[in-house]
Amino acid sequence: MNRKICVCLEFLTEAHCAKIQETAKKCGFSVHFFSPEQAEAAKAFLPECEVLYGHSIELLRAAPVTLKWYCCSWAGVDPYCKNDGTFANPDCLLTNSAGAYGVTIAEHLIMVTLMLLRRMPEYEQVVLNHDWSNQLPVRSIRGSSITVLGAGNLGTTFAERAKAMGAAHIIGISHSGKAREAVYDEMYSTSRLDEILPRTQILVMALPGTPDTIHMMTKERIALLPHDAILVNVGRGTALDQDALMDALNAGRLAGAALDVMVPEPLPKDHPLWNTKNLVLTPHVAGNMTLGYTCDLNVAMFCEDLENYAAGRPMRHLVNRTRGY
Amino acid sequence: MNRKICVCLEFLTEAHCAKIQETAKKCGFSVHFFSPEQAEAAKAFLPECEVLYGHSIELLRAAPVTLKWYCCSWAGVDPYCKNDGTFANPDCLLTNSAGAYGVTIAEHLIMVTLMLLRRMPEYEQVVLNHDWSNQLPVRSIRGSSITVLGAGNLGTTFAERAKAMGAAHIIGISHSGKAREAVYDEMYSTSRLDEILPRTQILVMALPGTPDTIHMMTKERIALLPHDAILVNVGRGTALDQDALMDALNAGRLAGAALDVMVPEPLPKDHPLWNTKNLVLTPHVAGNMTLGYTCDLNVAMFCEDLENYAAGRPMRHLVNRTRGY
Repeated sequence: MNRKICVCLEFLTEAHCAKIQETAKKCGFSVHFFSPEQAEAAKAFLPECEVLYGHSIELLRAAPVTLKWYCCSWAGVDPYCKNDGTFANPDCLLTNSAGAYGVTIAEHLIMVTLMLLRRMPEYEQVVLNHDWSNQLPVRSIRGSSITVLGAGNLGTTFAERAKAMGAAHIIGISHSGKAREAVYDEMYSTSRLDEILPRTQILVMALPGTPDTIHMMTKERIALLPHDAILVNVGRGTALDQDALMDALNAGRLAGAALDVMVPEPLPKDHPLWNTKNLVLTPHVAGNMTLGYTCDLNVAMFCEDLENYAAGRPMRHLVNRTRGY
Repeated sequence: MNRKICVCLEFLTEAHCAKIQETAKKCGFSVHFFSPEQAEAAKAFLPECEVLYGHSIELLRAAPVTLKWYCCSWAGVDPYCKNDGTFANPDCLLTNSAGAYGVTIAEHLIMVTLMLLRRMPEYEQVVLNHDWSNQLPVRSIRGSSITVLGAGNLGTTFAERAKAMGAAHIIGISHSGKAREAVYDEMYSTSRLDEILPRTQILVMALPGTPDTIHMMTKERIALLPHDAILVNVGRGTALDQDALMDALNAGRLAGAALDVMVPEPLPKDHPLWNTKNLVLTPHVAGNMTLGYTCDLNVAMFCEDLENYAAGRPMRHLVNRTRGY
């Protein structure tokens, strides 16, 4: 049993470790666990390892050509798809953990969408002033027209919840435009985006960070949204023209927005985004790893693909390093 | 056609008026519309009326013994069930419009529940300080144990959405304890409340304001909730011991609460509730009438019961004035 796995994660419980150990043993591997504080020890151990499960690009860069599979515990793997020598082994397999984040990100999306539709930024101001005012016009997910830009696991898990809450019409947009999930009333490729934006009331962006998605929501496309539309982004901050979004919000050409991702992160103290009108900001927390279910699923997905890897079967969460997702 | 209806509401569109007119005509009534600003004119007209559709107790008090049916456009009719001479005609029928508020209140409930589970009060403080901190432990509706105290239309519409989001177990509690909706995994009468609170993670209170529900959540019952539980109240502020709730929140004996109803309303500027820890306050907006769907349904429900009334059939939204709902 000289095939070795290096695991360097902060969220593992004893049960998680036991599950990984058990799966590894079955597959003929031994596992060594490191906390992120033990990164130096992990680095020293990497030359013996065939597999690395973690989320540190620095650690990955320390791995020699003998590393054959890197499982990233995060959903977005754009930092690993830059062909910049991060992988010593050009054929190293890369898997991500996008599927683990569907529930937590979908709940974040439902929450901020309702906060915008129900005017919570304004009501919170009322409450902050100890005032009493309750006649702001609110709106509903029920009966709404939603476009999910980036109809992968995250977007689709949100769409399922929006449908259950009575959304009238949900359009999915993906790179290929292939309909994978019944929850979408219509499904298009990104080339059709300009036609769809004018009939969108709620735009949910859950795009991966790839060269194709950078500034996909340009100033011109933001202007195609109806003035009473709202925009929510949980994918990557680079996917939209942030300055154009700020202008549209401050000028009232868009009813509201919620950003969990932005450029840059962390956002500097004096950045104008902090004070943009009708904007719900969160510091990249939608996919928070502290949700137990997310952690459980993350580990389960790694174990599933470890069995696939050991058996020489196709890996379920494999990322195309050129495409970026 | 000397049977007359007085309508005194602020939210009616032309389409709503046309629908009421048409139904009234079919049933042999004529309708006179007044805005709340025209309340004096409405009062002068009331002696000719058999039916009043509105939400002003002052207006109702001006109606003589000839008024046979008062349709209240609000969900809660506790001010009308006090046997204090509000109705000149002791046999005057009272209907409410609770069913119209299910969707808007359920969306409010989902929103504030997620805000509490996902630590939004704390993250909003982080954002207010232009800080960047993203490791607060969040929780999920998925897999949670929910108790709906007041399993009527409002509570059940919420329960349906929570179920669709993966709630593990939903207990309904109503006066009778009769299971009306399949969404509940268990259904009990209020007498079983003490057994159920210790196994509740999310307590949603959607009780009508009746003598039975006053301070139903006593200090002792609040103490029965697990320390990581959250409590949400959209029914009536009187249904809980507000001082005990404030103490529990400030002492950290409860993870969080969201109140859309409180005592008194409006809340005075210097009330300690404004500054209670982990509390999401909203100024009685969950059932906001400005949601188009709520208004549409309100009018549809009145028209449905107008047909029932005219035909001598049982009315669907009739309130038992002794019971209070």
